[in-house]
Amino acid sequence: MQQAIAILDSGVGGLTVVKEVMRQLPQEKIIYFGDTARTPYGPRPSEDVVSFTRQIVDYLIQFSPKMIVIACNTATAVALEDIRSRVNIPVVGVIHPGARAAIKATKTGIVGVIGTDGTIRSGAYEHALKQIAPQLQVVSRACPDFVPLVEKGQFRTSHTYKVVERALYDLKDNAMDCLILGCTHYPFLTETISEVMGPEVALISSADETAREISTILYQSNQLARSDETPIHQFFCSGEPGMFRKIAQDWLGDHILLQPVVWQSPSIS
Amino acid sequence: MQQAIAILDSGVGGLTVVKEVMRQLPQEKIIYFGDTARTPYGPRPSEDVVSFTRQIVDYLIQFSPKMIVIACNTATAVALEDIRSRVNIPVVGVIHPGARAAIKATKTGIVGVIGTDGTIRSGAYEHALKQIAPQLQVVSRACPDFVPLVEKGQFRTSHTYKVVERALYDLKDNAMDCLILGCTHYPFLTETISEVMGPEVALISSADETAREISTILYQSNQLARSDETPIHQFFCSGEPGMFRKIAQDWLGDHILLQPVVWQSPSIS
Repeated sequence: MQQAIAILDSGVGGLTVVKEVMRQLPQEKIIYFGDTARTPYGPRPSEDVVSFTRQIVDYLIQFSPKMIVIACNTATAVALEDIRSRVNIPVVGVIHPGARAAIKATKTGIVGVIGTDGTIRSGAYEHALKQIAPQLQVVSRACPDFVPLVEKGQFRTSHTYKVVERALYDLKDNAMDCLILGCTHYPFLTETISEVMGPEVALISSADETAREISTILYQSNQLARSDETPIHQFFCSGEPGMFRKIAQDWLGDHILLQPVVWQSPSIS
Repeated sequence: MQQAIAILDSGVGGLTVVKEVMRQLPQEKIIYFGDTARTPYGPRPSEDVVSFTRQIVDYLIQFSPKMIVIACNTATAVALEDIRSRVNIPVVGVIHPGARAAIKATKTGIVGVIGTDGTIRSGAYEHALKQIAPQLQVVSRACPDFVPLVEKGQFRTSHTYKVVERALYDLKDNAMDCLILGCTHYPFLTETISEVMGPEVALISSADETAREISTILYQSNQLARSDETPIHQFFCSGEPGMFRKIAQDWLGDHILLQPVVWQSPSIS
């Protein structure tokens, strides 16, 4: 029985990590949990986010995964260290991978970060960036209106464009040459964000970068999947599965979901 | 006393990894060993390369480094697992980082690899790529004439252009969209290789990618440098230091070498 990578998020955002793991590590089995009943995490007090994350990890750990991926920037910012201290397998967050990719990419030394209120308030990206490269200049911006658009499936409407433009308009005045999408929901809005920011600003998806780091860590600990079988993924969500299923199919493609998928709601408080 | 990252290579090629570690991890101390007396490793029998690599690791381990980086593709291909079994600290090679970056980058699914005879003969890149993503198509090419050019400091001469063009000319016939520079010497020739291959082929430097993976592994094992002091690097080479010093200054910049540098030849067989 192939051991899975367990990936969790506040909702559908972590599916951006799933998509990249499927592409970059096609032999790995994934178990996903989206806490759609309690999304968004961004505006919630830290202690609630820690408690929700613990609860989901307790649920996922019963599948004996080989790794836990906290595919939510808000939960990574406040709960990563706590979860690390509670389990005996590698725990990967999405903040440091994005930070490292920005450090590798920037030429001007000015890096932008957008995220939820919770992520930006925590200062986690600024801390991660400056811990490694203290000379960097970091410009952060909370974009609390983005996640609700994604959870409703509104990726490319004119309303979405207006919301994104209003949020990012004056960020362009800086000499930043890369902008970290510091929320795993934001890659759903990549086209719109890119249009607003212009071609000279490289968008760094913490989702894409996290998939690559998962690959690094599995290799380094000699845990890459060796099976030639096609992995069978499992998806769980805490809320009503209709919208989750629709977004997952739109994002991951119908062919992916032709593989057996188990939809099941664990009891949550 | 800050623990260093120990980086070794057959000669000056590993300086491309050093440069990126300095840029991406400016707080980390580096101890470098270039085996300039026995370069190039590419045409040598595997057992010699394993034996040389062991000897250098034995020399470097006396400095109690926190990590060993085999910044030579030939040595990574044949000696990585051997060295891993001999030391109790993380050992990082340059092959898997390049492979992972190519998997992340490719859209066509056709990846090119150039390297020394030893690296290409080992099939190490093809193995690393297909272990992770079996559907990829890999086109490999040994370029034994490149390392001697670099060790002589001939990066941008017209002779160099002719040698590179002759070696890579017909590789362009493939639909490859990325080419792994599977030798840490090759980034010295980036401009020439890029001119020959054209803008539609992304060049992936295993050196740059390795620096990023060093960052990932140090973070994951909680070993990032916390010091605010400027690290003092040390460089060793086994051969005559004149050309090594010249290339190091050209590549790393004079300001880097204003920091104290110790030149010393260990006894080698």
